[in-house]
Amino acid sequence: MNVNFAERAHNHNWKLDPIVRSLLDTDFYKLLMLQFIWKNFPQVQVTSEVVNRTVRVHLAERVGMAALREQMEHVRGLRFRRSELVWLAGNTFYGVRFIFEPAFLEWLEKDFALSDYEIAEQESDDPAHAGQLTLRFSGLWTAVTMWEVYALAIVSELKTRAALAELSELELDVLYARAKTRLWDKIEKLRDVEGLQLSDFGTRRRHSFLWQEYAVQALRASLGKRFGGTSNTALAYKHDLEAIGTNAHELPMAMAALASVGSDDELRASQYRVLELWQRSYGGSLLIMLPDTFGTTQFLEHAPEFAADWTGQRVDSKDPYVAGDEYVAWLESRGRDPRQKRLIASDGLDVDDIVKLHEYFSGRIRFSAGWGTLLTNDFRGCHPRGEDTLEPLSLVCKLTSANGIPTVKLSDNARKTAGPVELVARYRRVFGSEAETGAAVIV
Amino acid sequence: MNVNFAERAHNHNWKLDPIVRSLLDTDFYKLLMLQFIWKNFPQVQVTSEVVNRTVRVHLAERVGMAALREQMEHVRGLRFRRSELVWLAGNTFYGVRFIFEPAFLEWLEKDFALSDYEIAEQESDDPAHAGQLTLRFSGLWTAVTMWEVYALAIVSELKTRAALAELSELELDVLYARAKTRLWDKIEKLRDVEGLQLSDFGTRRRHSFLWQEYAVQALRASLGKRFGGTSNTALAYKHDLEAIGTNAHELPMAMAALASVGSDDELRASQYRVLELWQRSYGGSLLIMLPDTFGTTQFLEHAPEFAADWTGQRVDSKDPYVAGDEYVAWLESRGRDPRQKRLIASDGLDVDDIVKLHEYFSGRIRFSAGWGTLLTNDFRGCHPRGEDTLEPLSLVCKLTSANGIPTVKLSDNARKTAGPVELVARYRRVFGSEAETGAAVIV
Repeated sequence: MNVNFAERAHNHNWKLDPIVRSLLDTDFYKLLMLQFIWKNFPQVQVTSEVVNRTVRVHLAERVGMAALREQMEHVRGLRFRRSELVWLAGNTFYGVRFIFEPAFLEWLEKDFALSDYEIAEQESDDPAHAGQLTLRFSGLWTAVTMWEVYALAIVSELKTRAALAELSELELDVLYARAKTRLWDKIEKLRDVEGLQLSDFGTRRRHSFLWQEYAVQALRASLGKRFGGTSNTALAYKHDLEAIGTNAHELPMAMAALASVGSDDELRASQYRVLELWQRSYGGSLLIMLPDTFGTTQFLEHAPEFAADWTGQRVDSKDPYVAGDEYVAWLESRGRDPRQKRLIASDGLDVDDIVKLHEYFSGRIRFSAGWGTLLTNDFRGCHPRGEDTLEPLSLVCKLTSANGIPTVKLSDNARKTAGPVELVARYRRVFGSEAETGAAVIV
Repeated sequence: MNVNFAERAHNHNWKLDPIVRSLLDTDFYKLLMLQFIWKNFPQVQVTSEVVNRTVRVHLAERVGMAALREQMEHVRGLRFRRSELVWLAGNTFYGVRFIFEPAFLEWLEKDFALSDYEIAEQESDDPAHAGQLTLRFSGLWTAVTMWEVYALAIVSELKTRAALAELSELELDVLYARAKTRLWDKIEKLRDVEGLQLSDFGTRRRHSFLWQEYAVQALRASLGKRFGGTSNTALAYKHDLEAIGTNAHELPMAMAALASVGSDDELRASQYRVLELWQRSYGGSLLIMLPDTFGTTQFLEHAPEFAADWTGQRVDSKDPYVAGDEYVAWLESRGRDPRQKRLIASDGLDVDDIVKLHEYFSGRIRFSAGWGTLLTNDFRGCHPRGEDTLEPLSLVCKLTSANGIPTVKLSDNARKTAGPVELVARYRRVFGSEAETGAAVIV
């Protein structure tokens, strides 16, 4: 009886189960940054690269080149759909309509295209490279930037699929029961926390698209107003949620690289130039700064007055208690009321961190959490045979050069420092050397 | 696209989702006992009744009379299917073929019918009855006996369904994720226990038929030879498993009632008369005695010599460590080697009990566990809103009279004693009064 013959035949014969189903399946900040780049840096050429910071996992052994290429090509073949563009044009983001200019949307529809890329398996005796994938992008910044989230989500989910393919139907069932139980136990800890504010930031390192969607729906159904929305634009669109996110390190990194041909003063000033340009395009809640690219303390110390008028700060590599205290003190020193400002933590958070941070900052500053990989990919200990193949990786995709000039990131956590050694040395001289070997990078 | 229109329409319109899908959906021992009754007591009239020993739960408020009647009528309309009868006739049970006589199978096919029943809601100020259901059966013993498992499974699953109907789709998903995680955590504790032997005994108080089937498949897939089979005949048939079980209290209870019109000696002797009759029909591994109906110690003390030749004992109300030690000592006192005998514990066991009992008796007697309600209905703490509506009840269905004479059960646990006060007094005089207020009856 009830056999769906069409579905069975389809399941047996499909050629590709796409990982990225729509160009909106990306973090919202990528779209904001894309418009920013399209407007301010339309001719800049960049390279960027996927890096697996979890070097003990040999990605190339888990993710097949052919499958990776197939998924990448699928994304390259996607176009923004008419209905998606109409939504971007007419929807209210952060309380504001018409954030995207008509000319930009027209360009998105007609001229946007993803850059070329290079895929290879790394052969090396260096344990940081052995068995790793090379996945490198080069071209116009406007054509490269969007790859970041698509590529990370593809690599992450291909790794997931390879691990799932080893499991029987019953084992799969155990796996998901455990992961769901884990997720719901987490949600129960958040359910009754007064005034809590959190969003999903877990697109790039998710277990899978469907699992992220499940997690987002679970949060929406359970947390009410405590759930602010999702960074995933496709999920925001599909489920009428707030799209969350503003900007990322690639802006100050590229602008610093471009400025680095000049004097040390020009290099140092570039980090504030980002803010100036950003506030020409965006206002209000979108004025969230990310001061840790070259060290938060020096950033705040020398920041121009207008930076204190921004809406808030995102903390992504410093101990968030320290960073929040520092921001509160800085705002007070500049005569601003921290209780009117926002502090967003987004670095490897899990539920207990979120609750503790919320309590710590309660009444002092408006705290909110960007809950990432440990929301959308916490399968630790869930594998039915006790294997670690479904544990999340610390995967990133970073700009490596702009107009041929290598980029550098110092970060507040020395484990996240990136760039050629000699350039890192110069940046440290210019910006100071405050990065400390901080917490181990889990995700 | 892939919408199964037929299935959707069916789901919206079905009249009855049957709980008992086949007459084989019962404990195997009921079929063995049915043949025993058909052969030895074809004219005896009995009454039996469902009792909820978890009196704090007002069953009548959870289980609707109309739905109950509908499910009962559905079972009454069922017939043994030809293929089921062929299987009963030709299959090997406990290593023996042709356990069921052709004449019995012919009777099953042509003349078997379930008795009439009475359903009512109890109105009473007595907390043991207030809000409880009356579900009472009367007629020929051959027509009443099979109701036990069907009725218990129906009441149990109707209660489940009522609780599930309160939950959203997402809450249902949480619930089952938690219950599956619980089940798999239990299985992991059993997986590597050397020489373990256990079977599913959880039909009557299961969460639902499908959940029992899931649990049985999980055990089969994970435990290999450690999983001996299931008491559920339909599942044994469907999944090619061993059907497990031999006999229950209703035999000595009915035979004692029938003997109780005579002398105390005749009453006392009736408990051994069951064994005599049983071994006329069955042999080998089916010779498992259940000595606790009127107290295990007196039973063993006065047991005829042939009882020591039986294959083993099932412990259902006494502390299983004590009962096992007692049985081992008794076997030795009768010159039998306990290591050739089987000890089956089946009273409210959970995974830790099973492992500990297995270790305790290892090398001394062949221990095996009948894992019941805490295998097939352990949803404690799984309810997404923290309610207790899905926790299992201590539901039983017991013979209350035979040929108009009330039945009595003393048991080794005074909480399980049943029968009219004045008759219990006589039985205690005859059999002794060894029942102690034992462990609280969970399930």
